[in-house]
Amino acid sequence: MALFIVRHEHKADLCPAADPYRGAALLSHLSQPYARRHGMEIRGKAVVQGEHTLYLIIESADEACVRRFMEPLAAAGSLDIHPASTCAGVVAGGGCAAPGLLTDTETVDPETACEDAVEAGLLVHRVHPLNCETSVPELIGGVVVPNARFYVRNHFPIPLLNPATWRLNVGGLVERPQRFNLDDLHHMPSQTLVVTLECAGNGRSLLHPPVEGEQWRLGAVSTAEWTGVPLVEVLDRAGPAGRARTVVLRGADGGDVPGRTAPLRFERSLSLDEARDSDALLAYAMNGEALPRHHGFPLRVVVPGWYAVASVKWLTEIEVIDTDFAGFFQADRYFYEWPREGRTTREPVALQQVRALITEPVADSDIPTGELTVRGVAWSGASPIARVEVSVGLGTWQPARLVGERRRHSWQWWELLTRVDVPGATTVRARATDLAGRTQPEQPVWNRLGYGINPVQEVAFRVR
Amino acid sequence: MALFIVRHEHKADLCPAADPYRGAALLSHLSQPYARRHGMEIRGKAVVQGEHTLYLIIESADEACVRRFMEPLAAAGSLDIHPASTCAGVVAGGGCAAPGLLTDTETVDPETACEDAVEAGLLVHRVHPLNCETSVPELIGGVVVPNARFYVRNHFPIPLLNPATWRLNVGGLVERPQRFNLDDLHHMPSQTLVVTLECAGNGRSLLHPPVEGEQWRLGAVSTAEWTGVPLVEVLDRAGPAGRARTVVLRGADGGDVPGRTAPLRFERSLSLDEARDSDALLAYAMNGEALPRHHGFPLRVVVPGWYAVASVKWLTEIEVIDTDFAGFFQADRYFYEWPREGRTTREPVALQQVRALITEPVADSDIPTGELTVRGVAWSGASPIARVEVSVGLGTWQPARLVGERRRHSWQWWELLTRVDVPGATTVRARATDLAGRTQPEQPVWNRLGYGINPVQEVAFRVR
Repeated sequence: MALFIVRHEHKADLCPAADPYRGAALLSHLSQPYARRHGMEIRGKAVVQGEHTLYLIIESADEACVRRFMEPLAAAGSLDIHPASTCAGVVAGGGCAAPGLLTDTETVDPETACEDAVEAGLLVHRVHPLNCETSVPELIGGVVVPNARFYVRNHFPIPLLNPATWRLNVGGLVERPQRFNLDDLHHMPSQTLVVTLECAGNGRSLLHPPVEGEQWRLGAVSTAEWTGVPLVEVLDRAGPAGRARTVVLRGADGGDVPGRTAPLRFERSLSLDEARDSDALLAYAMNGEALPRHHGFPLRVVVPGWYAVASVKWLTEIEVIDTDFAGFFQADRYFYEWPREGRTTREPVALQQVRALITEPVADSDIPTGELTVRGVAWSGASPIARVEVSVGLGTWQPARLVGERRRHSWQWWELLTRVDVPGATTVRARATDLAGRTQPEQPVWNRLGYGINPVQEVAFRVR
Repeated sequence: MALFIVRHEHKADLCPAADPYRGAALLSHLSQPYARRHGMEIRGKAVVQGEHTLYLIIESADEACVRRFMEPLAAAGSLDIHPASTCAGVVAGGGCAAPGLLTDTETVDPETACEDAVEAGLLVHRVHPLNCETSVPELIGGVVVPNARFYVRNHFPIPLLNPATWRLNVGGLVERPQRFNLDDLHHMPSQTLVVTLECAGNGRSLLHPPVEGEQWRLGAVSTAEWTGVPLVEVLDRAGPAGRARTVVLRGADGGDVPGRTAPLRFERSLSLDEARDSDALLAYAMNGEALPRHHGFPLRVVVPGWYAVASVKWLTEIEVIDTDFAGFFQADRYFYEWPREGRTTREPVALQQVRALITEPVADSDIPTGELTVRGVAWSGASPIARVEVSVGLGTWQPARLVGERRRHSWQWWELLTRVDVPGATTVRARATDLAGRTQPEQPVWNRLGYGINPVQEVAFRVR
């Protein structure tokens, strides 16, 4: 893609914007989405006052493309198209007299990605690769979290995949190896599921003694409505061979990891049964929009109920094998390791633990005496939420009201309208129990890598 | 804030970017976050190749501010600052030769609102008041439509309400008049509903002979997840008196209307029974975010199943009365008026008519022979969708698959995977039927004001 500065001037009496309908049509023509459909990105636009002159900064494959796009305006006046560079390109290339630098198109600029996250109110943990959590007090109801506010967990730089050349290969022990482009997937049977994704390390910062790894507070969890093709549909087209046992899902993201000499790709496996029975989706849309780049554009796996490490982003390969799979993100990470009776017990990280998250009151806030609303979300990978109980001060556990319909794979809002009548420092706690009877421990259960930390949450506040 | 186009030119041998350290400092200087700290927004930037000329589009309080900010560059060469306008501003103001539109501080700047809408891919019908429809081909699955892409229908300029001083008054024939601030409502029992809103005039442009009013195509419909307080909860707190019959809902938006001498506010009524039994919500959140300004911030009514005119935005008053209500938007607009057997029949606009909307294939597109996916949404105010049938060419009606769970108040996706094997021009049609047995007419049913137009949709495309 190349950058252009476009200058268009017309006579005042020919101004197409003077007619409100032509004006509106022109606005639509010069909009980002319309330009995008013509293979262009509009990077800036403005009209010089009193001079009938429009400037556009456009990214496009070539000048001819820009010229075609500008035809409706050219008809009303002049059109100058100047090849241009970004400021970063000029600096990187050694100044405006130098020949200029090629843009690296393989990963998302970490600066931009980080800026976007900060602008949306996410709490950034790491800039590169980008890791940030959702701001819990900004959850104000509604099951879905807007895409810009959805927590982000990356292990490697964010790959920038070209949707036109991207392919999903399905191979290994299958009868009919498959190769899908994005259009193929769009034209297969679709499914939409509301699913809560949670990072297995969510709440890790609660552990004492602390453990290594991203120090997540409680916001590494969000819910969205995902649309795509059921994984089982894609597997059925390929036809796993009789001895097939495991489905390996491989993303386009990769790099070096500790203890391995060669760089590797992000990959995870599901057993063939899990792949078939988990309602796993190959999602191309999130809350009704194409997947954002940092959430796996153009295609990601969404495995409902599982910690999100299973939901491989930037999916490019599905390989069916007849053995277990011992990739880095299963063999070296993402397992529970508990010290028990002098021995070490290990178990893979799989379904999300049951947990309630308090969104109101906000920690350290001042609340007037009188009515108090305690509110939050609760979820469990194993089964829907059966009940949430709330304790104010050190009072008894009171049942909260579950809000809205119970959904199989998504968090549920709950709320308790109660009173606080005694001024002073106090706390509120919330405890969820799922239909399988699992509930939350009072204290975090320490494990070496810090996964599945789901103690009863306590929020301190003051009554005035 | 004002917009400026800034042009800076320097001699090649003085290029500050030639020195990597000065270059990097310059990049940081010209970055959005740095500019923002100086009260400026950079809306676009590019360097003309081989001309040592930098263009910036900057939003700032005044020109002096821009000049100060550009000093480091001005030191290396020339600096021209031109006051500028956005494209939407030019159109809203009546063209580049017009004096421009005064911004009313109590309403949202129409320019900004329009720019946002255009950027999000909405099809703008009118800039002021802002009216735009959702781009149907951009619906790619998922029940909810992202807030930025939700269709917008306004009768008056968009009021800009201060959430700190905003109040909802509930009065008239009630035992306990109420006055709620936003915080009060946040602390009342909440509810989340996925609801499809549709403008009663959606599809009006299909009518022959044409009728007056906004010439909507088919995109004046969208779905969101709404969170708020049930209307019935608020009514119960106020306690309607024994002879109460009607609930009047009044928005903060208003202005002049044809045939009335005094300006009026936007207001609509529901019977007390409708207000109680319709699941109506006083919504403060939309898809997990505070209501956007143009969707009624801070509070709007959402009446599930009804044409959206009932879902009053910017709600400030609820008045209970013991008569029918004859406001402008009920007595003068929003009723069906059919010519029947030489007489005129009238009926108020209430529940949404049943309708299927085709999102794929896109009109006038070229489709290769072979597999064809026909896909879309369907809804009905009276009851959930029972079935959608699709006819390709003039072929028989084939049942489409209904995708996902059936929801009481929201549209449902459907799809049919079929084949087209004969090259040439052809069409596809879709017809929905709801559980109450209502279906769509073959031809639009003409009525004087153009409401509830729901004929079977036909999309023409070419097979190659």
